[in-house]
Amino acid sequence: MSGFDVPDFGMSWLDAVGTSADVVLSTRVRLARNLQGYPFVAKAGPDEREAVFDAVRRVARASQLTRHCACIRMAKIDPHARRVFMERRLVSSDLVGEGRPGPHEAAAVIAVFDEPISIMINEEDHLRLQSLSSGLCIAEAWNLVDRLDEAIGRELLLAFHPEFGYLTSCPTNTGTGLRASVLVHLPGLVLTKEIDRVLQGLAHMGLTYRGLYGEGSEVVGNFFQISNQTTLGKSEEDLVDHLVRMVDTVIQTEARARHTLMRDAGPSTENLIWRAYGLLRYARLLTYKDLMELLSGVRLGVSLKLLPGPPVYTLNRMMIFSQAAHLDQAAGRELSRPERQAHRASYVRKVLSDGNEPPTSDPGG
Amino acid sequence: MSGFDVPDFGMSWLDAVGTSADVVLSTRVRLARNLQGYPFVAKAGPDEREAVFDAVRRVARASQLTRHCACIRMAKIDPHARRVFMERRLVSSDLVGEGRPGPHEAAAVIAVFDEPISIMINEEDHLRLQSLSSGLCIAEAWNLVDRLDEAIGRELLLAFHPEFGYLTSCPTNTGTGLRASVLVHLPGLVLTKEIDRVLQGLAHMGLTYRGLYGEGSEVVGNFFQISNQTTLGKSEEDLVDHLVRMVDTVIQTEARARHTLMRDAGPSTENLIWRAYGLLRYARLLTYKDLMELLSGVRLGVSLKLLPGPPVYTLNRMMIFSQAAHLDQAAGRELSRPERQAHRASYVRKVLSDGNEPPTSDPGG
Repeated sequence: MSGFDVPDFGMSWLDAVGTSADVVLSTRVRLARNLQGYPFVAKAGPDEREAVFDAVRRVARASQLTRHCACIRMAKIDPHARRVFMERRLVSSDLVGEGRPGPHEAAAVIAVFDEPISIMINEEDHLRLQSLSSGLCIAEAWNLVDRLDEAIGRELLLAFHPEFGYLTSCPTNTGTGLRASVLVHLPGLVLTKEIDRVLQGLAHMGLTYRGLYGEGSEVVGNFFQISNQTTLGKSEEDLVDHLVRMVDTVIQTEARARHTLMRDAGPSTENLIWRAYGLLRYARLLTYKDLMELLSGVRLGVSLKLLPGPPVYTLNRMMIFSQAAHLDQAAGRELSRPERQAHRASYVRKVLSDGNEPPTSDPGG
Repeated sequence: MSGFDVPDFGMSWLDAVGTSADVVLSTRVRLARNLQGYPFVAKAGPDEREAVFDAVRRVARASQLTRHCACIRMAKIDPHARRVFMERRLVSSDLVGEGRPGPHEAAAVIAVFDEPISIMINEEDHLRLQSLSSGLCIAEAWNLVDRLDEAIGRELLLAFHPEFGYLTSCPTNTGTGLRASVLVHLPGLVLTKEIDRVLQGLAHMGLTYRGLYGEGSEVVGNFFQISNQTTLGKSEEDLVDHLVRMVDTVIQTEARARHTLMRDAGPSTENLIWRAYGLLRYARLLTYKDLMELLSGVRLGVSLKLLPGPPVYTLNRMMIFSQAAHLDQAAGRELSRPERQAHRASYVRKVLSDGNEPPTSDPGG
């Protein structure tokens, strides 16, 4: 494991707590902020970025809310550890310099130990204040980030325009700089083919959706990240309230779809779920997409009580720990692509057989 | 089960005995014969067909070889029992009158209890003498049918032309009236994509192939029935010898393909096999085609010792007992199509869990 040892923080969003944990995986709220008097990150030179980093770190360490933290420069950790953090959704592909020669010297993350909050420094904006928590907790996450914003705002002068609001590198974030998103699992709506109608409805209500890893990421395993599209012209509270109401509607619609699935297509649904379970339990090679699609079936089965387990928390962990960098970490070396498929399948079999035996009663029933 | 009780004879070909039982399922040899002085079945009237039936039954009951037998008129048993016999390959679709209003009054089968031989009466020809045995035993099967032919020929005058040989309803059978076929499982050649070349080679050597249920039946689950194409101009012994040699070559080629699969594509092959096992073990709905394809994977896995079981005999029985009429028989009523898929999956799960537990050692390995 030498060189591949990565601290375990930033994982509390997997805990599968909170209401509707079988539909909502996690809630994420972030605020984009920039320091007044410094050019935006893309225009800044190394010294200016370094100055931003110093200022933010100083404030974070002094603040009651954030002082128990790790401050990690992306350029100081090996590329493997960066990928692990990215797979845990603690840092973004932009921060780690994906598609570029590498991260800026002053690109960093401050990860707080005792609260589910973190700060990316010198990402697209000087500051990305974020909270990532398990389950459905938009208001709580927003309050936490809002407190963080206030703590920072007391010490640092933020770029703010009386008419436009907070200024950001990309105009789509200008205003509140807020993006609140909820990661939901919607297999019921996908299987009943209602998903397109629901997504269109969300778009009409000013919301948008993305895959698990945010902008540009593909939807796999029926996991949708629903978030506000606009940040300008409304208060943070209005945006948050609106998202809460819309997500509640989506959860209810998904619940109805699952009910319909069992009522109108019980045997096909059971078949799909048990086949997914059988493949996960015995496959010798799994791509990540394979895994996510099969996990989607198993998660649905657990939610419908057709499968006795594993618990949702285990399923959440499987999603994270079967990603490429996490598998490499467990193996203690960089695996080839075929090796990773084999390690992924092996890991999944082990998880499913450890205390999660398939039901032995009535195998023919 | 009332009304659905069907005697269990004609099933010894499932026994998975003989050489190469993991490649060769069964050997079938049949002779087409017609009685002199009667029109061919298609041209005969009811009285003439009845006369043929009487004559053959009388001879069969008097002969040492066949006297322990059941003589079953197709019209006297219910359609369900006819389908069960057809699924066991004891009778043909022609004999049971598939695609016609029903079987002729005098269409019958004489099934012998203590030898793997039977006689279809008033099928396409007056007589179809057949032997169906487990494993690779072309010469033995031929000898048995030859003895039956002699026994019949001693008592009844058979339609024979000094130049053409035995006369048959369809000219393709004229001459020896012999079709010898071997049912082989060739997943190795299919997976290595060598199968087309091998089948072309067989065609050049005067052999042909069909699916599990003979002429016009689809190849499913990589089961091919290889048989002689010509019956004219060669002796029975030559035809039999030729088939023996060609089938030996096919078996060797299949063995090499399986070796190649493990050498060059071990992980993919294991993956395919274990996925098939996982689906069979947990699916809640299975079409017959699904089942045959998955069984093909499991059979390959057992042959390659990648799977601990079930034994080939169990796999052979599963092929037969998961067919539509057999499932209806077990249920004691005619099932709907979706019900059958559920009963098939349930039957398969039961077989696989009865004393054939998946390996518990090293689930992650």
